Amino acid sequence: MKNSNQPQNNELVKDWIGLIQVFTCPEDAETRATLVGLMSQILFELHDFLIKSVGITEEISLKDLADDYTQTVLNKCPEKKLAEVVTGVFDTIAPHAVNVASPYFVGHMTAAIPYFMVHLKAIVAALNQNVVKLETSKVVSVLEKQIVAKIHRMIFNLSDEFYKEHVQNTDTSLGSFMEGGTTANLTALWVARNKALGPKEGFAGIEKKGLVEAYRAYGVDRCVVLVSRRAHYSFRKAGGLLGIGNENIIPVAVDQNNRLKIDALEEAIACAKQDGRTKIIAIVGIAGTTETGTVDPLRDIAAICARENIHFHADAAWGGPTLMSDRYKHLLDGIQLADSVTIDGHKQFYMPMGCGMIYFKNPWGLDAISYHANYVNRRGSVDLGIRTLAGSREANCLILDSAIKIMGTRGYGMLIEHGIELAAAFAEEIESRPLFQLTTRPELNILTYRVCPPELQTEMKTASAQRIDEINDELNELNRTIQQEQREAGKSFVSRTVLEQDTIFPGMPPGKIVVLRSVLMNPLTNIEILKDILDEQECLYELWRLGEIGLEKTRKDRK
Amino acid sequence: MKNSNQPQNNELVKDWIGLIQVFTCPEDAETRATLVGLMSQILFELHDFLIKSVGITEEISLKDLADDYTQTVLNKCPEKKLAEVVTGVFDTIAPHAVNVASPYFVGHMTAAIPYFMVHLKAIVAALNQNVVKLETSKVVSVLEKQIVAKIHRMIFNLSDEFYKEHVQNTDTSLGSFMEGGTTANLTALWVARNKALGPKEGFAGIEKKGLVEAYRAYGVDRCVVLVSRRAHYSFRKAGGLLGIGNENIIPVAVDQNNRLKIDALEEAIACAKQDGRTKIIAIVGIAGTTETGTVDPLRDIAAICARENIHFHADAAWGGPTLMSDRYKHLLDGIQLADSVTIDGHKQFYMPMGCGMIYFKNPWGLDAISYHANYVNRRGSVDLGIRTLAGSREANCLILDSAIKIMGTRGYGMLIEHGIELAAAFAEEIESRPLFQLTTRPELNILTYRVCPPELQTEMKTASAQRIDEINDELNELNRTIQQEQREAGKSFVSRTVLEQDTIFPGMPPGKIVVLRSVLMNPLTNIEILKDILDEQECLYELWRLGEIGLEKTRKDRK
Repeated sequence: MKNSNQPQNNELVKDWIGLIQVFTCPEDAETRATLVGLMSQILFELHDFLIKSVGITEEISLKDLADDYTQTVLNKCPEKKLAEVVTGVFDTIAPHAVNVASPYFVGHMTAAIPYFMVHLKAIVAALNQNVVKLETSKVVSVLEKQIVAKIHRMIFNLSDEFYKEHVQNTDTSLGSFMEGGTTANLTALWVARNKALGPKEGFAGIEKKGLVEAYRAYGVDRCVVLVSRRAHYSFRKAGGLLGIGNENIIPVAVDQNNRLKIDALEEAIACAKQDGRTKIIAIVGIAGTTETGTVDPLRDIAAICARENIHFHADAAWGGPTLMSDRYKHLLDGIQLADSVTIDGHKQFYMPMGCGMIYFKNPWGLDAISYHANYVNRRGSVDLGIRTLAGSREANCLILDSAIKIMGTRGYGMLIEHGIELAAAFAEEIESRPLFQLTTRPELNILTYRVCPPELQTEMKTASAQRIDEINDELNELNRTIQQEQREAGKSFVSRTVLEQDTIFPGMPPGKIVVLRSVLMNPLTNIEILKDILDEQECLYELWRLGEIGLEKTRKDRK
Repeated sequence: MKNSNQPQNNELVKDWIGLIQVFTCPEDAETRATLVGLMSQILFELHDFLIKSVGITEEISLKDLADDYTQTVLNKCPEKKLAEVVTGVFDTIAPHAVNVASPYFVGHMTAAIPYFMVHLKAIVAALNQNVVKLETSKVVSVLEKQIVAKIHRMIFNLSDEFYKEHVQNTDTSLGSFMEGGTTANLTALWVARNKALGPKEGFAGIEKKGLVEAYRAYGVDRCVVLVSRRAHYSFRKAGGLLGIGNENIIPVAVDQNNRLKIDALEEAIACAKQDGRTKIIAIVGIAGTTETGTVDPLRDIAAICARENIHFHADAAWGGPTLMSDRYKHLLDGIQLADSVTIDGHKQFYMPMGCGMIYFKNPWGLDAISYHANYVNRRGSVDLGIRTLAGSREANCLILDSAIKIMGTRGYGMLIEHGIELAAAFAEEIESRPLFQLTTRPELNILTYRVCPPELQTEMKTASAQRIDEINDELNELNRTIQQEQREAGKSFVSRTVLEQDTIFPGMPPGKIVVLRSVLMNPLTNIEILKDILDEQECLYELWRLGEIGLEKTRKDRK
């Protein structure tokens, strides 16, 4: 078993002994001291480390960056020792990464995380439990069932009896951890599809027989899912993956406040039912849309789903943790009526990347997608992998459980309240500045706006449809440019998206408008920082007007 | 924005200031010193920590364990500070977790990881990059493309020109990181399905239109995937999920060495083609089956796939890293002819839990599953999320890239060689002991065997089919008992699975046999440890014979 390769230099893995060392207790005292210093920065000075080492964004072009990463042969011999690798990450990776933790980074749903999350992730990695089965996780599987029950209770608030019966019941499942919201939404539609087209007299069910036989057995030509026009793109992806076709994920119109329109939903249902050959397998309500942070009228959707006997899925990937704020949990009223709920841990639970969750009100809901094998997930076992899309899976439950012990729901509630109230203050600030136009008023902690000079705002009120189109083309170009220039300048970051003019401004003609998008989840972000960001955008607008940036600049440069 | 909740005790998150501190620079000097001590154990004494704190397995019953985890109300106020939470994990979670890192834990594909993996995971968590899009990852997206190209090269070994063109090409993709092998296999079949039923004149493709319309457009009634009988259960799951029906994942017979039988594959193809209405969307070859570690005849399967123009997927979740051993890479010959290849990072790349990878020989292969949205993955952008099942995703590429810098492929090669050679030695030891019967001879580093007393081995050679059934029932019960008793005793762990008697022992009647399964991936496991494990099993057999364990014991206890 010994390997006789010749030692080279002072490599860590120079021979079998060196190799064994990387599994046990490595490194001499000096190296270890270096490593302790480096890792202390990560573990105890995370915030300082990120500020010092990671540019918020930076101006190096992707092309220049990519040029350094074109070597494609794996090194045969060890190149570096751990301390060098870590130093290398600090010196060459970190500076070109994105400081998503900066309070000036308000563009995406990825932000600062509490320092203790890094400790917890390290512990999870060290224990290396695999939650797919009890034999590789034991207590951690039990812990996952408990924290899942706690979050289930936060959402659905069923009886003591109910939770007593199911918290550690090995035959039922209240939900599961998974990779992310996309997998969670996929799991919800997968279950909904299998419920709608399940086994019955003379038919073994869609999961076994496939879609074509299922449609035949149930006398349908088409399955559809009705979602808000603002739904996350993961639903279309799920539609494609599940074989129902992504064009059958049908977008329903939203009102001026970006909430699913109930009358449009009723119309869509009536339309789907018209031919008697279409099955609506699920209706999705969103608790915190990706683009505007809006919450759909969940209670109304629930009533319709109950009446029509359709699976009601609530996508609370973003907004779910709002339930921990006594002040704002009413905004999610109706979520307790859903059949299934998605919540992301790496969003407003501030966990490290890679933690989604799905919850089912019915403890047998996930049975619709159960799988067994001889070597794992045996029938009757308690293996959590029986009812998950994933096989091997890391124990992120340990992180969420610990985080709630440290923060309490009150701590999370404070974060939620900060975001919602800061968004309201930001909206006020935007409206007070003539150059800006608020395009979506925040309900939770996300808002959109655009740069729109006052003279154009005025002109648009009376302009012809054609002129409005022209103005919008210019505004879209302007906002795209400002967003990109601000990102490249590297001091702050807002994102951008595209909304429909006629929805945002009722009475206006159809058309797409580019808007700037702010996601306010970082507790270190405050109104002064947001004013700075607007100031910078005002400056960029001046540069645009002078032809120093944007198309005019490009035209000038060409001359 | 300030929150006026009253401070309680000396909580970490007692007020807004406390809350901000958990995002910045927390803890007093004393607490920090405690934490440094605790985290040093995790980061620098991982092996010692696991030996000291984590039982290999332990005898506490699941029931007793679960009784401590039945409280289902989330705590409103913080309960513990980080140091207490970490201590709590050490004291109450770790002892009841499973020490998958023990050299005596040889039952599953989860084992020891090098200590530096924990450091790297902490760094990934600290940077908290989200690889779904460039705006939240920048250099890390570039790095992922590079390491993906390197592994692609290890598998497919195409030309310098090819890698130069694609390594940083934003329009193409050589593969992707994902949650695990299940997702990777699913992605491969998803692409294969969409390729087989893609857009064509008058039809917009299955992803958009769904399976029913696709079958109509292509004039088929059924799609099937042909896999070895030893294939991972994720293929059946993928069949159900993708809508083709999991019964259409057709198991093909294997030979006595557990390798897919080429003549049976040809028969399955002929049978599928018979009605002219069945499409074979993929054939899967396995490079390291889960149960027996066998490699299918990849080159022969490739030739058939080429002839039939069928997608050839190689599931090398387990065996892929064998390519890093000069001594044994020939065992995977033919893998370079596959269209897509699954490799797991958390298996033989020894990465922490939660890292799968998929590779496509064709750089446009993943286009078949691309998705866009207004706020992310815009058309023409370089966002890696365009061609992945997942949305938000952690930067595991950074771990693999660093690990290869530290170990070199040679270091990994040594691990592979150790496992394969140790398995061969173990097989020899098993065969030298009369009580045991080797049921699958190891090709890589997995083998199965069973306890089968010599008198029964002799008797079975001439027994009637009925008597063989009886003997097997008893042997199955015996092996189940020994596996469970050994697990509960807590000194060592082998797993068990079920194989078919007539495949394992040609000439024997059909029937299921329970076998013990060893996975030899831990470099600290050696032949002496494996002898200990066999010794313990011999002792357990004696106890069984005396009626001290197993059914006899249960019967006695009842009296």
